[in-house]
Amino acid sequence: MPSSRYFWFLWQFKLAVCQLSICADKEQNIRHAREAIQTAADGGSKLVLLPEMWNCPYSNASFPIYAEDIDAGDSPSSKMLSDMAKSKEVTIIGGSIPERSGNHLYNTCCIYGKDGSLKGKHRKVHLFDIDIPGKIQFKESDTLKPGDKYTVVDTDVGRIGVGICYDIRFPEMAMTYAARGVHMICYPGAFNMTTGPAHWELLQKARAVDNQLFVATCSPARNPSAGYVAWGHSSVIGPFGEILASTGREEAIFYADIDYAQIKERRMNMPLDHQRRGDLYQLVDLTLAT
Amino acid sequence: MPSSRYFWFLWQFKLAVCQLSICADKEQNIRHAREAIQTAADGGSKLVLLPEMWNCPYSNASFPIYAEDIDAGDSPSSKMLSDMAKSKEVTIIGGSIPERSGNHLYNTCCIYGKDGSLKGKHRKVHLFDIDIPGKIQFKESDTLKPGDKYTVVDTDVGRIGVGICYDIRFPEMAMTYAARGVHMICYPGAFNMTTGPAHWELLQKARAVDNQLFVATCSPARNPSAGYVAWGHSSVIGPFGEILASTGREEAIFYADIDYAQIKERRMNMPLDHQRRGDLYQLVDLTLAT
Repeated sequence: MPSSRYFWFLWQFKLAVCQLSICADKEQNIRHAREAIQTAADGGSKLVLLPEMWNCPYSNASFPIYAEDIDAGDSPSSKMLSDMAKSKEVTIIGGSIPERSGNHLYNTCCIYGKDGSLKGKHRKVHLFDIDIPGKIQFKESDTLKPGDKYTVVDTDVGRIGVGICYDIRFPEMAMTYAARGVHMICYPGAFNMTTGPAHWELLQKARAVDNQLFVATCSPARNPSAGYVAWGHSSVIGPFGEILASTGREEAIFYADIDYAQIKERRMNMPLDHQRRGDLYQLVDLTLAT
Repeated sequence: MPSSRYFWFLWQFKLAVCQLSICADKEQNIRHAREAIQTAADGGSKLVLLPEMWNCPYSNASFPIYAEDIDAGDSPSSKMLSDMAKSKEVTIIGGSIPERSGNHLYNTCCIYGKDGSLKGKHRKVHLFDIDIPGKIQFKESDTLKPGDKYTVVDTDVGRIGVGICYDIRFPEMAMTYAARGVHMICYPGAFNMTTGPAHWELLQKARAVDNQLFVATCSPARNPSAGYVAWGHSSVIGPFGEILASTGREEAIFYADIDYAQIKERRMNMPLDHQRRGDLYQLVDLTLAT
């Protein structure tokens, strides 16, 4: 489809995933993320993905302290993302930071277009409340409030759906994004040393294969001395479940060549969406209700 | 929960998966399957799972020739399953055979209780019509008609949902079964040499992890000289995505120890079902509509 390849967004482009080391110094984290975006853009990327909670340690104690009011414009982390998107002309899926809004805190991902404009803001919809005795216990809802919206943005690099970490466990969200015509779902996410090895790659591949679209994830690098130890292993998965790029536990900026023509090809080979049994089941998107 | 462990079905039991070699001689296939069930039952299994299309070669040319009218009682394949279920006192998820009903053919799984009664009959709902050029092309709908019902049966070994092969690609079906309280989903299925290595294990694990239940699959053994070459690799997966038992390409009868208490534990650790966002999405079971 050479004639439609540059219809209104890039069908082929380079994606950069920035699996960053996070420290307790917010300014240092912002500086470090800025440098990573610069490196990624200079490396030819048109889309840059950052990790979940990249400006602070991942803990309920940190969230209120590091939180920024994005809507009020009082957010140095977001300002840096906007500035970098504009100056480097890249789309940025800005991982997430703790967002303060009124009396509430959210785990929020800001998406910036290559003109620096805020394209969308995803507040983590499914909070991470789990308790596997002796392994991992965390309760985000102790400090955070969940978002109540899907986030689908049209960008220069296609239509992108955004989820954060635990959101990936809920197939309904990915299926709804697919139904809305998304080309790629980006999940900033910090899985841990228990659920990471058990499920992280599996869930990414499952969302990609079931919905025949691209999935990209971005974790913080692993810090064994942190209160919450992230699994790492950020990846980019193609619509047949193939690993296009991935990394281990260390800090890394890595790249994947995306070609959205793959989506069309896979869906021609296996027309799952046409083969669904709308007479037996239907996934209803209640946010579209009038 | 010792007091409820033997409420009305076994919470702990041994499952046998019979990955059988299939030949062109139907009577031989029936004899062979009978021996396998005997071996499985003598090995202590309370639940026996057979492969997709175990009484005939997997081809559109074979289906009409090997088809049997189950409802009319003109089905030596089904009669053997019923007889064996009763005489060995085991529940049998009878893989599938081509079923003739009126002018139509179906890919049908019969489920027999340990008293030999037909507990349910699953007609493959999602037919296998795919075309990956140079790799695999098949169109079941050339000869078969799809079923139009879910199949959930209450047995001595719990509540079991049944899908056949390509049915596993549709998350809605597994999610509906989970909503109906199923403990295990059994998928007789013959994936191929292209989609098998790419997706077979992934899909089994994804259905198990997303729905926090057991998944068991049963493929025919691989026959490299067959028209359709099955991938094999039958498996039993636990509710955390762990492989409890699996096999390779060769014929094999293998066993897994099932403990449904695992379901409760995993759902306490990660209460996904309570964390779903019923305000954003809802999967509607249209077969329950009045």
